[in-house]
Amino acid sequence: MEQQLWNSVLAVREKSPLVHSITNYVVMNNTANALLAVGASPVMAHAYSEVHDMVAIAGALIINIGTLDEYWVESMKLAISQANTLGKPWLLDPVGAGATPYRNKVLQELLEYQPTVIRGNASEIMALASMSAGTKGVDSTNHTDEALDAAIQLNQAHGSVVCVSGATDLIVQEKGCLTLTNGDKLMTRVTGMGCTASALIGAFCATTTTHYFEATVAAMALMGIAGEIAAEKSPGPGSLQLHFLDTLYQINKDEFVQRVKLEEYNGGF
Amino acid sequence: MEQQLWNSVLAVREKSPLVHSITNYVVMNNTANALLAVGASPVMAHAYSEVHDMVAIAGALIINIGTLDEYWVESMKLAISQANTLGKPWLLDPVGAGATPYRNKVLQELLEYQPTVIRGNASEIMALASMSAGTKGVDSTNHTDEALDAAIQLNQAHGSVVCVSGATDLIVQEKGCLTLTNGDKLMTRVTGMGCTASALIGAFCATTTTHYFEATVAAMALMGIAGEIAAEKSPGPGSLQLHFLDTLYQINKDEFVQRVKLEEYNGGF
Amino acid sequence: MEQQLWNSVLAVREKSPLVHSITNYVVMNNTANALLAVGASPVMAHAYSEVHDMVAIAGALIINIGTLDEYWVESMKLAISQANTLGKPWLLDPVGAGATPYRNKVLQELLEYQPTVIRGNASEIMALASMSAGTKGVDSTNHTDEALDAAIQLNQAHGSVVCVSGATDLIVQEKGCLTLTNGDKLMTRVTGMGCTASALIGAFCATTTTHYFEATVAAMALMGIAGEIAAEKSPGPGSLQLHFLDTLYQINKDEFVQRVKLEEYNGGF
Repeated sequence: MEQQLWNSVLAVREKSPLVHSITNYVVMNNTANALLAVGASPVMAHAYSEVHDMVAIAGALIINIGTLDEYWVESMKLAISQANTLGKPWLLDPVGAGATPYRNKVLQELLEYQPTVIRGNASEIMALASMSAGTKGVDSTNHTDEALDAAIQLNQAHGSVVCVSGATDLIVQEKGCLTLTNGDKLMTRVTGMGCTASALIGAFCATTTTHYFEATVAAMALMGIAGEIAAEKSPGPGSLQLHFLDTLYQINKDEFVQRVKLEEYNGGF
Repeated sequence: MEQQLWNSVLAVREKSPLVHSITNYVVMNNTANALLAVGASPVMAHAYSEVHDMVAIAGALIINIGTLDEYWVESMKLAISQANTLGKPWLLDPVGAGATPYRNKVLQELLEYQPTVIRGNASEIMALASMSAGTKGVDSTNHTDEALDAAIQLNQAHGSVVCVSGATDLIVQEKGCLTLTNGDKLMTRVTGMGCTASALIGAFCATTTTHYFEATVAAMALMGIAGEIAAEKSPGPGSLQLHFLDTLYQINKDEFVQRVKLEEYNGGF
Repeated sequence: MEQQLWNSVLAVREKSPLVHSITNYVVMNNTANALLAVGASPVMAHAYSEVHDMVAIAGALIINIGTLDEYWVESMKLAISQANTLGKPWLLDPVGAGATPYRNKVLQELLEYQPTVIRGNASEIMALASMSAGTKGVDSTNHTDEALDAAIQLNQAHGSVVCVSGATDLIVQEKGCLTLTNGDKLMTRVTGMGCTASALIGAFCATTTTHYFEATVAAMALMGIAGEIAAEKSPGPGSLQLHFLDTLYQINKDEFVQRVKLEEYNGGF
């Protein structure tokens, strides 16, 4: 499995997929940098007049509602429709799910388009599943394993690969789920690490036409491993962001394979 | 006083307040990172459909007009109204005050909502007070102490704590004013340092219901001290930004207390 | 020539020109930082109600269509009209030219305003000239020298100085063209390096009323030299961005003059 995950990292470096993000203002710069660091090619475009055409040339679409408004939500729907028509993978990042009724309403509408992958923290995934759990802004207040039921429910309702990220990452598909326990707590002090995870999942999904579960696991493994290597060199979050990008760019097979902490998860189904 | 200021730093770390920013595109990423580094929790949201609800769960609201347009100004007004209704502190950062008639008109409208705190550089504060002083873009062309009269005038007209930031920071309330002389000139070569100061003031104000003057002084002291520690390690502005975030995260009581350069200001009232 | 280029660097440091950018969300932060690092003063403003006034106080205008939409395109046209009326230099950065019909249509409209300078990668410049070449998102898929014909065509049609950036930078005017071969491949792994080049060209153009070709060459030489100095210290793209900003700030005459790789280009006209 570790070898297979590393092959996914290599596939991104070799194929350099174009990843189209309709994402929030806060993280556009660092998610673009993360995509470039792993070898992918980022594009951000949201105009009604071109999202249709941009999706057509991209390998995957990332939808991140962090700084949503009426214009952007409509743009997201246009782009998602096109992705579904063309059979391209798209990821939903439900930033701040549960924080406001508007956010919840929009997310319910977007879920109807059946995301290929959903990635959020535990409270976001729980809010998405129930549209009733509280959330404190964009930070997680629930533990990953508490979100397992919610992830399973979303997977069953929408057929999506569901990734709950946190100290333990949980990745759910129909056939079961895996956990990853790489990463470092200092990553929570850098804005947009979750959004970066979503962007990388998009890049990895763009290199396959069917193995979206494996692509998601590989992207999350790379996130966690690069984050923990970076954290070992970093006295604070400013340094972490720098070393994280350097590590995404530099990491080799040995570092990756030796560090991966992957397990099948038994608490579930 | 130094001990009291440090207690404010600790209060932010312990309470991790949610700070809602309606701010400019340029600085969203680094202000979010600064808030995370001090232990606060950032959220950016501007949609008409949700600002009301987001303010309700936040501890403070930051209004920064840097890249204002018609939509965003209306969003700011909706959010401020809600903050005032709920008695939550809100800060006005009048970026580029004096640069264009539109900016001045918007600022006059926002001032009527009586900001809890106003923070700007000397030329912005003077423009805000007079709506007649010239400004060269978003940089300061007046010295801090020349802005004292303007700060007093704004305090008297609106009841706001007024902070004029620069080589010397001036913080004005009804009862008098204080100066802080921490910081380093290299900080002026990093975009959004003023906006970051505003964001941190918001985080500090969110931990109190009345002591907004002390919260503002504590936030500005932390800015200046972290900036000068970072500058000592930095050959240029790229390094400064990294070390600044690391220092906000790492700084301890001894470093803070030993470095604070705080004085009551006698030139005033 | 090297001395003259260095004088341009000094002119930016001494005059600290105000550069007005209407640019994409992804790069606003790092282009603002690059402008501050070279000594210029950045302002970003796009509201219909103020672009007219902001152009009036700025020394140059940057138009970058990276994340264009209907509102922003109209704002760009208002700003450009004002720049032309006032005789101020403006630069067109045709990000993603060729990627979508909408982008091409907008670019055709903007070209009619006769940009002072156009800067793009080879595929963008070729798309701009032909509105028929394919493009893979915002990355270059054509070599710089293949774009010479396109650059000449754009120069002849619009009178613009045309800069094709890449491993070899090509700068074209009526009287001929020059190449620069500074830089490092790692620069392509940092988002917005092209956009930063455009911003710096704007700052350099703002210090002259006629010598826009020389200003463009000087800005591109500084980009390439700072990029290669930074790359020598950088294991990856995170470090590169930091050292790049530090170098823009620190670089001295000796480093600049010794490294410049400038040649007249004979393959052309």
